[in-house]
Amino acid sequence: MIQSKDEFKKYIDSVKSSNDYKEPIAFGIARVDLGVIDDSKTLQAIYPLINWKENYGSAAVFISALQKSGVVIDFKSSEFVADIDASFVREAMNIFAPFLAEANGEAHKNVQIIKYLESLIGSEDYRVCFIFEDVAPKSVESVYLKLYALSSAKAELRSLNLNGAFGLLSNVAWSGTTPIELEWLRANEIELKLTNNYPIIDSVDKFPRYLQHIIPADNTRILDSSKVRMGAQLAAGTTVMPGASYINFNAGTQGAVMVEGRISSSAIVGEGSDVGGGASILGVLSGTDGIPVSIGKNTLLGANSVTGTALGDGCIVDAGITILAGTKITLNEKAIKELKDVNPQGDITSLMKGKDFAGLNGVHFRANSISGQLQASRSTREVKLNTELH
Amino acid sequence: MIQSKDEFKKYIDSVKSSNDYKEPIAFGIARVDLGVIDDSKTLQAIYPLINWKENYGSAAVFISALQKSGVVIDFKSSEFVADIDASFVREAMNIFAPFLAEANGEAHKNVQIIKYLESLIGSEDYRVCFIFEDVAPKSVESVYLKLYALSSAKAELRSLNLNGAFGLLSNVAWSGTTPIELEWLRANEIELKLTNNYPIIDSVDKFPRYLQHIIPADNTRILDSSKVRMGAQLAAGTTVMPGASYINFNAGTQGAVMVEGRISSSAIVGEGSDVGGGASILGVLSGTDGIPVSIGKNTLLGANSVTGTALGDGCIVDAGITILAGTKITLNEKAIKELKDVNPQGDITSLMKGKDFAGLNGVHFRANSISGQLQASRSTREVKLNTELH
Amino acid sequence: MIQSKDEFKKYIDSVKSSNDYKEPIAFGIARVDLGVIDDSKTLQAIYPLINWKENYGSAAVFISALQKSGVVIDFKSSEFVADIDASFVREAMNIFAPFLAEANGEAHKNVQIIKYLESLIGSEDYRVCFIFEDVAPKSVESVYLKLYALSSAKAELRSLNLNGAFGLLSNVAWSGTTPIELEWLRANEIELKLTNNYPIIDSVDKFPRYLQHIIPADNTRILDSSKVRMGAQLAAGTTVMPGASYINFNAGTQGAVMVEGRISSSAIVGEGSDVGGGASILGVLSGTDGIPVSIGKNTLLGANSVTGTALGDGCIVDAGITILAGTKITLNEKAIKELKDVNPQGDITSLMKGKDFAGLNGVHFRANSISGQLQASRSTREVKLNTELH
Repeated sequence: MIQSKDEFKKYIDSVKSSNDYKEPIAFGIARVDLGVIDDSKTLQAIYPLINWKENYGSAAVFISALQKSGVVIDFKSSEFVADIDASFVREAMNIFAPFLAEANGEAHKNVQIIKYLESLIGSEDYRVCFIFEDVAPKSVESVYLKLYALSSAKAELRSLNLNGAFGLLSNVAWSGTTPIELEWLRANEIELKLTNNYPIIDSVDKFPRYLQHIIPADNTRILDSSKVRMGAQLAAGTTVMPGASYINFNAGTQGAVMVEGRISSSAIVGEGSDVGGGASILGVLSGTDGIPVSIGKNTLLGANSVTGTALGDGCIVDAGITILAGTKITLNEKAIKELKDVNPQGDITSLMKGKDFAGLNGVHFRANSISGQLQASRSTREVKLNTELH
Repeated sequence: MIQSKDEFKKYIDSVKSSNDYKEPIAFGIARVDLGVIDDSKTLQAIYPLINWKENYGSAAVFISALQKSGVVIDFKSSEFVADIDASFVREAMNIFAPFLAEANGEAHKNVQIIKYLESLIGSEDYRVCFIFEDVAPKSVESVYLKLYALSSAKAELRSLNLNGAFGLLSNVAWSGTTPIELEWLRANEIELKLTNNYPIIDSVDKFPRYLQHIIPADNTRILDSSKVRMGAQLAAGTTVMPGASYINFNAGTQGAVMVEGRISSSAIVGEGSDVGGGASILGVLSGTDGIPVSIGKNTLLGANSVTGTALGDGCIVDAGITILAGTKITLNEKAIKELKDVNPQGDITSLMKGKDFAGLNGVHFRANSISGQLQASRSTREVKLNTELH
Repeated sequence: MIQSKDEFKKYIDSVKSSNDYKEPIAFGIARVDLGVIDDSKTLQAIYPLINWKENYGSAAVFISALQKSGVVIDFKSSEFVADIDASFVREAMNIFAPFLAEANGEAHKNVQIIKYLESLIGSEDYRVCFIFEDVAPKSVESVYLKLYALSSAKAELRSLNLNGAFGLLSNVAWSGTTPIELEWLRANEIELKLTNNYPIIDSVDKFPRYLQHIIPADNTRILDSSKVRMGAQLAAGTTVMPGASYINFNAGTQGAVMVEGRISSSAIVGEGSDVGGGASILGVLSGTDGIPVSIGKNTLLGANSVTGTALGDGCIVDAGITILAGTKITLNEKAIKELKDVNPQGDITSLMKGKDFAGLNGVHFRANSISGQLQASRSTREVKLNTELH
């Protein structure tokens, strides 16, 4: 057993100095839900804590404890997942010994987990997952670790490799926090229905909901848990209303945003913006020329508007208007002059396409209800010029 | 103990005749959910019954029972909230004595509550709340009392002062009917997740849902509880579909209405109208010139339409059309004539803005798909002229 | 007791040869939820299995077992519903005797139900329902049998007579899988609220949700159970997102479809099509000239579009566009020529109404944002010509 923090430090250094040791980008211990019909399938991984480019000492403890309990870790692989057992927990307790007493509240959460596991091990399935390289995930556990990184804002939206994630996840029936295999439901349908024990199914999906795993900031509101998928990112102060809204995984907000519409996968909305009721921000798969849509700060997307191109700060898309990458927009001379004032670098002309507005600030898109023309002009919203650019 | 109904009446008169006594506008006894981390915070108040400008005798009983159990009531304050205990219940039982036997079913519900409390007191937290003046609420209990008044249609929409309500309510995680402090979730996240006891979170919001507190009329349908916030008002026969609909607090319907779209806070829809799939009725904060939107009777808002101005009876807004306060609408001579026929007092011209239609009946808004023009004409829907006006 | 499969066959033949015997179109055994306040009302019927134009032998067993336990069946009625009791189960066990041992897994599901009922009978309410003729249903049990037939794709959408179904079903509060009478909630509101036993209400409706009764295919996803009503039909591979989507009863998909919008009652969408975020497919009651809308294969309905007319294969309705039956659409000469190439039988002219496009393939509907005109042209999507027609 390690006797002091100094000894702990030396021990960690020795673990890290071993020949093939590699610092993980991310790691964590998860409780996993396995299939009942096929227990080789992880249906869900629940992380009480994830470590993302941090807490390398705890990583070394977990790696050392695994090795001491007889597990061989392949550091050349992009990730590693292992069952954990009483032996692992005991070894980790011994290494963490100098920290056991003070591991409470906000302090030493990885140590707290090991302390809890001392009494829990055997009652549920627990696994440790390490990601050494951000390439396509190979396991459900590493997919969840990345979804947690996105949803807890430890990794930036669009920054992680999630290729093939859909292929790794099982499509399951979610009953509250519990995933149920569809095949198990089929095999037990007669008995469950006749005995009045058929479960309450909230959804059938490969992904769980954000609120099954993530505790939002005190001033964040999500009025319906179905509206935010695990893997979405919501900055503090964001409100998601229950009407026609949805935030997909790898999409979200970078500040306090009012969300009453859809933020498709890969779309990002800046601070102070407002996604109006039923407004759609398109994803990379439809109408966006394949470029992920970013919406700047302090921009308003009106009710039932559709936006398929990036927009800068302080823009307004009027209610009911559709601006796709290829949509033709007309500008008069006043509009051109005023938009050049706030976009000195912008290429602003009398006829532009939706995609030409990417990154331009202070644009107001509206339909002229006499001519039927879609027009752009200077919005009434404040735009802060980046003076360094002038 | 009061021996007879006569004696009861005299007793109530004596209570009311005391010098500083003031009749409350509203009162009720609530079970309250307090914070676990901070039990000075009321997270929710559940009223089995509210009294709104009625049942002044029961108010006097509750006030007298409080005073007899040692509570000093400040009648000069706009509201008063007190914990209730065994002593209060005993005193109220004594005063209500002549009614105890017959307090069943629909009769004497305040007495029924006291009877239940006799055995329940101590098992949960109960409070009594009185509102003496309709000013900005000062407590969670009085906010809920007002939300109940709106949702049970005892008070008219837009008629109550709810200033500051958002500041009084705590943002909590709702698990079914139970509010949970986010801070408590954070403090217990590791244990809850490792032991598979993490609660099912349905929403994170300051407000509960309408169906957590209100039993709708027999012919009212709400296909998804997340779609109606506590504080909304739904007249009997209203149907709220689950697609893109939402009814916010202090908004709702005044008759049987089909709701497949959004009724923003402060908006009201009249009997027989239809809010189509994805249709948006804007709230006071966006595109309405700050005037709350009322929609008349028998009016159709087409799918994905947006309405930001008040409309009269028998109107049609075509699917996909946006009518904001400032939207320019063109009318031909036939339309002007026919609309004047059903709106003798109306100022109807060849070019009007959305807000100019406020209160006009029988208007059909449509987009001319050849010219692109937004046009108004006489709708095909029946409009009943108020003959007293002619 | 029947001793062999041969004897079973002979027995069934004898049952069927009785004078008044009539083969049912459909039958099944259901566990039923009855009202607590009014137990003459069936609030819900839960079928572990339905038989639809199949398994006529099992039908004869159930009919014979009913008759032997003293029930008189009126074969002249369009349907028949009966309580089942221990006597019925015993008689059915005796007839099914040669199959009892092998009734497991996918084999002999009607026999499995009887085996389960042997121990369960008396613990819950069970009923058997036969439909002899597809006319307006007369019972809640037969309504549910038809809804199951639609949702399990044993009957085609729009093929069944559901006239009067709304009148038969009770409007109830749904708490998970359990229907609760609103009147019961009212009668018990005080006690439920004071004791903190008020149920979690998910919806108030006459219909349950699809996922309360139906197990979807392995590759079907429904991200929010409120979005699909019982009686909807979802082909394998269909995904229903949680934003602004909804699929009503007697509506749905005929292949893998991405659904982010609304499919109203009676509307059908073909394989490979995409109902974009907030897109509305209208039902027969609004804007469709009363003709149910069918959408072909491989057709895209853009975000927030509205479609009120039938469309063929490989069409595109741009985001934000509304095509109702009466909407005027302009076509230039190139469009007319190219659309005639893929629609040799089509009557394609320079000015058409929405309804004129019914069944035409490869049409792209868009708004010209310079002229405001709604225009149709040849879409970029592949259309497979039916060569037999040429």
